[in-house]
Amino acid sequence: MGKLGAWTVRFSDRLSEIGSRIETTLDDLLSEKLLSQEIGRPPQLLNAMRYSSLGGGKRLRPFLFVESAALCGADGQCPGVFRAAAALEMIHCYSLVHDDLPAMDDDDLRRGKPTTHKAFDEATAILAGDGLLTYAFDVMADPATHDDPRIRADLTLGLARASGHGGMAGGQILDLTAEGKALSAEDITTLQAMKTGALIRFGCEGGAVYAGASAEEQTRLKTFGEIIGRAFQLADDLLDVTASEADMGKKTGKDAEQGKATLVGLYGMDESRRRLENLVGDARRVLEPHGERASILIEAAEFIAERTY
Amino acid sequence: MGKLGAWTVRFSDRLSEIGSRIETTLDDLLSEKLLSQEIGRPPQLLNAMRYSSLGGGKRLRPFLFVESAALCGADGQCPGVFRAAAALEMIHCYSLVHDDLPAMDDDDLRRGKPTTHKAFDEATAILAGDGLLTYAFDVMADPATHDDPRIRADLTLGLARASGHGGMAGGQILDLTAEGKALSAEDITTLQAMKTGALIRFGCEGGAVYAGASAEEQTRLKTFGEIIGRAFQLADDLLDVTASEADMGKKTGKDAEQGKATLVGLYGMDESRRRLENLVGDARRVLEPHGERASILIEAAEFIAERTY
Repeated sequence: MGKLGAWTVRFSDRLSEIGSRIETTLDDLLSEKLLSQEIGRPPQLLNAMRYSSLGGGKRLRPFLFVESAALCGADGQCPGVFRAAAALEMIHCYSLVHDDLPAMDDDDLRRGKPTTHKAFDEATAILAGDGLLTYAFDVMADPATHDDPRIRADLTLGLARASGHGGMAGGQILDLTAEGKALSAEDITTLQAMKTGALIRFGCEGGAVYAGASAEEQTRLKTFGEIIGRAFQLADDLLDVTASEADMGKKTGKDAEQGKATLVGLYGMDESRRRLENLVGDARRVLEPHGERASILIEAAEFIAERTY
Repeated sequence: MGKLGAWTVRFSDRLSEIGSRIETTLDDLLSEKLLSQEIGRPPQLLNAMRYSSLGGGKRLRPFLFVESAALCGADGQCPGVFRAAAALEMIHCYSLVHDDLPAMDDDDLRRGKPTTHKAFDEATAILAGDGLLTYAFDVMADPATHDDPRIRADLTLGLARASGHGGMAGGQILDLTAEGKALSAEDITTLQAMKTGALIRFGCEGGAVYAGASAEEQTRLKTFGEIIGRAFQLADDLLDVTASEADMGKKTGKDAEQGKATLVGLYGMDESRRRLENLVGDARRVLEPHGERASILIEAAEFIAERTY
């Protein structure tokens, strides 16, 4: 694979540092402690929500949120920014739980452990997903997340729009109904922009919103997010062809097996890699106005394109 | 059944008037028109979301929302209050779709028509539920719903807390795991307060929040909502024993069949009816400070207790 640039120790350290604070934040949010207006926290649901969200994943979306917020002037250490980023991660986790269900992608393995409906049962998995999805908006709208109610409402709106029928959930139905169909590059691009792109875009744009960034900065981060979302999906499709199940902690080679149209299938491996390099170049250029301060997000773009798991 | 008082033509007219405006609002919100940040509205998902939310139900929760808002001084005709009330109804509709799934209550019939997973398929039903749940928060947080971002954020938070693991979704898992178990009256009351009570309570309390009501008024409407939530469930359990499937448009007699513990099972029919009358009396007393202006909500309490479908 072409040299896309290399991320530094500083990047990997920061990725795991943010990942570990997200873990702590999720653990705390999903503790037994009741919040106002909550009548109970049934352990059989809480445990499934914990199982579905703790102890796994690179926490890439929260990383983008926190770093985008920091780039735009927020305090990248404040608890509120980690709450907002954890809310975003809850949406990602819920989507994995529901996507893995027998009626959807029917997967038994996720991040190297049994999927939620395998570890619990289908009803519990559906409700754990519903619970995480709902809790994401609870956390986002809570005054503990940000002092400014306008920012809380904007974040809630942005997260909902990225996740719902017009974003992630809509992308999932396109994906389910696309199996075995010949899609154009444009169809695939739209599907992927919805299914995975929208939430990655929100990670970047939402961070800027959290920081109270100018409209210009928000647009810049949004564009950056769109580009790296496309890079993420292209890299993912390449990995589905090349990586082993042991590397990925989930089933690979599924795209071809299910007759799923991907850009890699349309362009071939070499052209796909070339396009991936171009996307990383585009991502770099978008953040040029931020100079050296944007280097960690640039490294994130490189990481996304080069990742092997 | 004991005389609980009778609702007037004014009440039935207002119930159907609000129901019809909720229908129009949902129809508009679920049209093909793309909103900002939405990448697409895949028809196969949009149609299932429409099927799951349009053309059915008494729209009781939105009615409570609009009338509570009006009682606390909001303009009960403004489009924003109907948007907020429609968001609440989306949550109710999503919960029906997911509760009806084969892995949950496995129902084929809802409001006299095939359940969403029967009319479409399971994957589509799961995603339609996810889509409605997500869109509810989108609509609630949207500036078109209320000018004041603090109120939008508060409504979002309240709706999420009533719907999630600490409210409705938590109640559903308690319900699923309670089948065949002997529950105490306290257990059943908690289960029902979560599963159905929380959303009815939010209908009343949320209306007060929408209107920017004082803390005292908000508490009063919240208490009223809790009481009529209990009345609703008691009436529902009575109906499950006495009503026919044709009246209800769904399967009845399920509680006994599934060995589901209800208060009616514990108290018997006569004592349950007496308790229902008491709840209506309590509901009346809570709203006494509002005088005649509260009469339509009082009639709603009577309607809830006396309804036969």
